[in-house]
Amino acid sequence: KDRTIPVELLTEKIKEKSRLHLAKGITLLESITAADKEAGQKLLLNLLPLSGNSIRIGITGVPGAGKSTFIEEFGLMLCDAGHKVAVLAIDPSSSITGGSILGDKTRMEELARHPNAFIRPSPTAGTLGGVHKKSRETMLLCEAAGFDILLIETVGVGQSETVVRGMVDFFMLLVLTGAGDELQGMKKGIMELADGIIVHKADGDNLRNAKKTVREYRQLLHFLQPASPGWTATSQPVSSIEKTGLEDVWKTVLSFKELMDSGGHWEMRRQSQTKDWFRSMINDRLIDTFFAKPGKKEQVAELEKALLQGNLTVTGAVDRLFG
Amino acid sequence: KDRTIPVELLTEKIKEKSRLHLAKGITLLESITAADKEAGQKLLLNLLPLSGNSIRIGITGVPGAGKSTFIEEFGLMLCDAGHKVAVLAIDPSSSITGGSILGDKTRMEELARHPNAFIRPSPTAGTLGGVHKKSRETMLLCEAAGFDILLIETVGVGQSETVVRGMVDFFMLLVLTGAGDELQGMKKGIMELADGIIVHKADGDNLRNAKKTVREYRQLLHFLQPASPGWTATSQPVSSIEKTGLEDVWKTVLSFKELMDSGGHWEMRRQSQTKDWFRSMINDRLIDTFFAKPGKKEQVAELEKALLQGNLTVTGAVDRLFG
Repeated sequence: KDRTIPVELLTEKIKEKSRLHLAKGITLLESITAADKEAGQKLLLNLLPLSGNSIRIGITGVPGAGKSTFIEEFGLMLCDAGHKVAVLAIDPSSSITGGSILGDKTRMEELARHPNAFIRPSPTAGTLGGVHKKSRETMLLCEAAGFDILLIETVGVGQSETVVRGMVDFFMLLVLTGAGDELQGMKKGIMELADGIIVHKADGDNLRNAKKTVREYRQLLHFLQPASPGWTATSQPVSSIEKTGLEDVWKTVLSFKELMDSGGHWEMRRQSQTKDWFRSMINDRLIDTFFAKPGKKEQVAELEKALLQGNLTVTGAVDRLFG
Repeated sequence: KDRTIPVELLTEKIKEKSRLHLAKGITLLESITAADKEAGQKLLLNLLPLSGNSIRIGITGVPGAGKSTFIEEFGLMLCDAGHKVAVLAIDPSSSITGGSILGDKTRMEELARHPNAFIRPSPTAGTLGGVHKKSRETMLLCEAAGFDILLIETVGVGQSETVVRGMVDFFMLLVLTGAGDELQGMKKGIMELADGIIVHKADGDNLRNAKKTVREYRQLLHFLQPASPGWTATSQPVSSIEKTGLEDVWKTVLSFKELMDSGGHWEMRRQSQTKDWFRSMINDRLIDTFFAKPGKKEQVAELEKALLQGNLTVTGAVDRLFG
């Protein structure tokens, strides 16, 4: 069976940039059996020295902003220019729906067929922390396989934006015209995470309005602290249909990298992201272990009830839980 | 010695609204000896049924915004109107400086002398979690002693704003004229926590500018999701010197309470705050216990070093830590 492919062979094949084996490697990392987990970690450790050499771009957007279309056209432009582009999706809700996002590949048919592209649907199970972990490890594997640009797409709403911001170098937000209305439906604080805002569908009858919206966002961004030190978040119009503005977005990313590199911030952010990841996994492990003990969940629920009824102090509740 | 005052007597005296005994009770809650801790929890449990009947107002501000002056004048107005006002300070940095904020009382001399006021400097030790815990318990004790308005002041910068937002019903932000410049120095996302923004020092030559700034903030607030469901954050001018706008602020708080009460959100937020408090204390306890084990801190530091050198995967590091 394919599953028993030796780790050393898998390592070599991924080093040789085999997309098929990259996919197998990622499946190994996502597996929940003990043997696969061990093999997956061994594979990752083998490939770790080859990881890190990419630009990691996070992409989020308001519903209907056309993320897939943008990613397809942006990815195709980069692939045609000789870059190797991997597209990954982070979907914290997939643990609820119980399946990967359908159509991740069909949505981006042309990009999926490009020899320089690799599209991976979101992991299918686990807590947000789990998805987070798998996606981070997947990123490292893609880099080892020679992908120099990673596009990390957030799917759904919720905590995913903050999680993705903590995994990427540059964070992009796709919006539509009408800043005010848009923002009403947007998660709080999301604009402050962005290094760049793209006003999408800036074409045809919509172009004029889009340009106005770009200016509105620039005004608004003026009021916000930069998400990255010294960088003022940009706002620019893009049409994926007319393929305009895509190169400008890429230029923005490159200027950003240059600025961050010059101040040492690029590497510093990566290091602090790794530390945060480690800390959050320690945290997750402590919580998971604690609540896996028999009866703990029920005890917490009971104590919570007593707390809300005013029969117990919070300190007292914690003491009972650990006593 | 005073320290040995029986819990039952202390309970009675606080019920009789003795400010002296309230202060003693708070000191008991802040104590770190095992006997005091037990007595403190017993006291709190006795008084729990009397807690909750106040409006809890969090107050933060940019440096130089004149928080103390505002709190003094706002507090005096409320005390003169027959309210009982307790002023508490949250200062996460006090664990570093190792002492309470000097001059909390001298800063608000007139308010401190008012028979309806009670001013408590910030707790003197512990982590942010610890300060948080003590302050929450202090709030409950103040309520049991009959204080119907609590003003919780954030001191210093850092995480305190989010912590305070999680403890209060209404969150106020004090700013000065020149929204753009102000916000440059403001912590990210802080504006989105606020239910009301006060443009302070709206007097004399500054009045015109202050009114302009109020309008700028209103425009800006239009773009942000409300911190409280259904409530659009307000922006209003206040002069503490000329005592103008103070009543308007109080009217805003009352309108807010009315709206929140009508939708059941007032009580719902309180309950969810209590649950969050419980969860975060469980979390803190797990982390504290884990890192108190001999050698764990050093081991984490070593693993972190190996991680940054690329000699280890994050999953591998966590496994070693728990293995």
